[in-house]
Amino acid sequence: MIKVDIVLAGFGNLGRAFAGLLLEKHHILVKRYGLDLRLRAIFRSCGGLKLKSPAAVGGLLKGKTRPAGKPCPWDPEVRLSASLVRGARGVFVACTTSDGRTGEPGLEHIRLGLSRGWHVVTADKSPLVAGFEELRRSAGKKGLTLGFSAAAGAALPALDVALGSLAGADITAVEGILNGTTNYILTRMREGADFDGALGEAQARGIAEPDPSRDIEGRDTAVKLLLIANAAMGLELRLEEIEIEPMTGVSPEDLLSADKKGEALKYLGRVERNAGKIRAEVKVRAIPPAHPLFAVNGTNKGITFLTDTMGAVTVTGGQSDPRGAAAALLKDIINIYRR
Amino acid sequence: MIKVDIVLAGFGNLGRAFAGLLLEKHHILVKRYGLDLRLRAIFRSCGGLKLKSPAAVGGLLKGKTRPAGKPCPWDPEVRLSASLVRGARGVFVACTTSDGRTGEPGLEHIRLGLSRGWHVVTADKSPLVAGFEELRRSAGKKGLTLGFSAAAGAALPALDVALGSLAGADITAVEGILNGTTNYILTRMREGADFDGALGEAQARGIAEPDPSRDIEGRDTAVKLLLIANAAMGLELRLEEIEIEPMTGVSPEDLLSADKKGEALKYLGRVERNAGKIRAEVKVRAIPPAHPLFAVNGTNKGITFLTDTMGAVTVTGGQSDPRGAAAALLKDIINIYRR
Repeated sequence: MIKVDIVLAGFGNLGRAFAGLLLEKHHILVKRYGLDLRLRAIFRSCGGLKLKSPAAVGGLLKGKTRPAGKPCPWDPEVRLSASLVRGARGVFVACTTSDGRTGEPGLEHIRLGLSRGWHVVTADKSPLVAGFEELRRSAGKKGLTLGFSAAAGAALPALDVALGSLAGADITAVEGILNGTTNYILTRMREGADFDGALGEAQARGIAEPDPSRDIEGRDTAVKLLLIANAAMGLELRLEEIEIEPMTGVSPEDLLSADKKGEALKYLGRVERNAGKIRAEVKVRAIPPAHPLFAVNGTNKGITFLTDTMGAVTVTGGQSDPRGAAAALLKDIINIYRR
Repeated sequence: MIKVDIVLAGFGNLGRAFAGLLLEKHHILVKRYGLDLRLRAIFRSCGGLKLKSPAAVGGLLKGKTRPAGKPCPWDPEVRLSASLVRGARGVFVACTTSDGRTGEPGLEHIRLGLSRGWHVVTADKSPLVAGFEELRRSAGKKGLTLGFSAAAGAALPALDVALGSLAGADITAVEGILNGTTNYILTRMREGADFDGALGEAQARGIAEPDPSRDIEGRDTAVKLLLIANAAMGLELRLEEIEIEPMTGVSPEDLLSADKKGEALKYLGRVERNAGKIRAEVKVRAIPPAHPLFAVNGTNKGITFLTDTMGAVTVTGGQSDPRGAAAALLKDIINIYRR
């Protein structure tokens, strides 16, 4: 039995789903993997909370984070830096949402975790975009793992397949439908809705954010593509090297024309290596029925890897909600200790 | 740098593809994974061959296995048992084709490898069907790996996804198109061919064996399903517990009726757990366009895992030839040493 301390930053939908999953799966993790994962502390921007027992999380999850009439449980004096005890080799789980440009506060948190000798598992994309090479090297030097499945596809196992299942193969191209909101919009438009109608519907169903610009302008797809392609193809591609076309320009004529040929419009992120040159783009493309992502509809995602020895390998599906992303965090933790 | 001795049994299409891949990838494996894989000996039923250098394999692969006018290089006095040096912790790679009922000679070879302290990576299904639990326990006790990706989907990464990407999730059902020959036949029948015509075509193109019974009667699908489902769902299912319907019974009427509903006929292996009861079957089923395996056509394969936390995750594709299977063997070897 391996006892592992867990410290969690971020207690929004994802942080709560992750804490809940730890409780729900505790018994099976002990039995199946010999892993006793113990959530020791949780941090939010307003303060921290040390947990004396797993049951304490249960109470926190049942009620609101601040039960009516009770004092706020989050204590600004309980600090992340004090919880990440040097050399404890637990796992620091980052569920914060950081600034898209600076990667903060996540970047600082992850640096702290690694410098204290903790493995890091993160769902926060921005720190990885801002400082992936630095963080990867820092983890590598100390023999620590930096797990980021939850940031790069969540329950869609893009990174595992690229790094594990295709080990030894050269990945010559990566192509993916990596954003559920825009795929939903295109699916509904193909069924007859116009852009504004499909977007409004996605917002009403909680699929799209009130401000959908990150999705429909392509930044979300580009960031996931960057993380996956850099890891899978051994690149050091930067965000500004990806040619991004917003998907807002799709016209009814485009749809009609694709439909006539039996093709489907998909908002694809694609990185390919051709004669040593890298080309990276995010744009709406028409793909034929034989394309492995042709039937990936609605909020589903999918990714195809082209290789030199294994042909084209495609992964699709994966629950795209906080529970699915929490399961991806948990998977990364299990895989740290599995061998 | 880790130096790893490799001993190979079997030198047919797959064994040769594997030996060739080791040569081709030697440089990249050193650079990317710090792995120096050294093929030390090869065994066939007629004898063994010790290799003094990697170049020796090159010569063997270029010519016939017995160059005209030269003495046979395979020496019956060179024995597998002498090459698997006790405690060397190299990798024994099994590319033989064993008897479907007894699992021999592969079972004896794999037992020997494990007992001598060698990791085992195998493409040979029959020994796993005959003795999986025994072999798994024997490997586990000694801290050795028994890799069998190449036997359970080859370049389609079914096992990695089940064991790695879905770690922590409960897999409630596994459903797959696991045989390329029968999927090709059904695809061609949907396009208008009759069964005999489609089968003849598959044989002419080298997709189907001269004796296609293992494929069309469902045993090949059942065996792969067994290996994947047992590993993925933690079962100890036996082959005789799988209800197998040959796919030869598909009629033009079945195809017509499916087509009318916009459905496709697929030869599916399926294991599901329902209220604690396991149900396992191989049969032709009609699936709707929204099914993630709907568009898996021709010789392509695919597998869907249903889970409690990550939804449905599907993998499709993977090159289905000796090179793809050899790449799966190599992948298993890399992953033994990667952490």
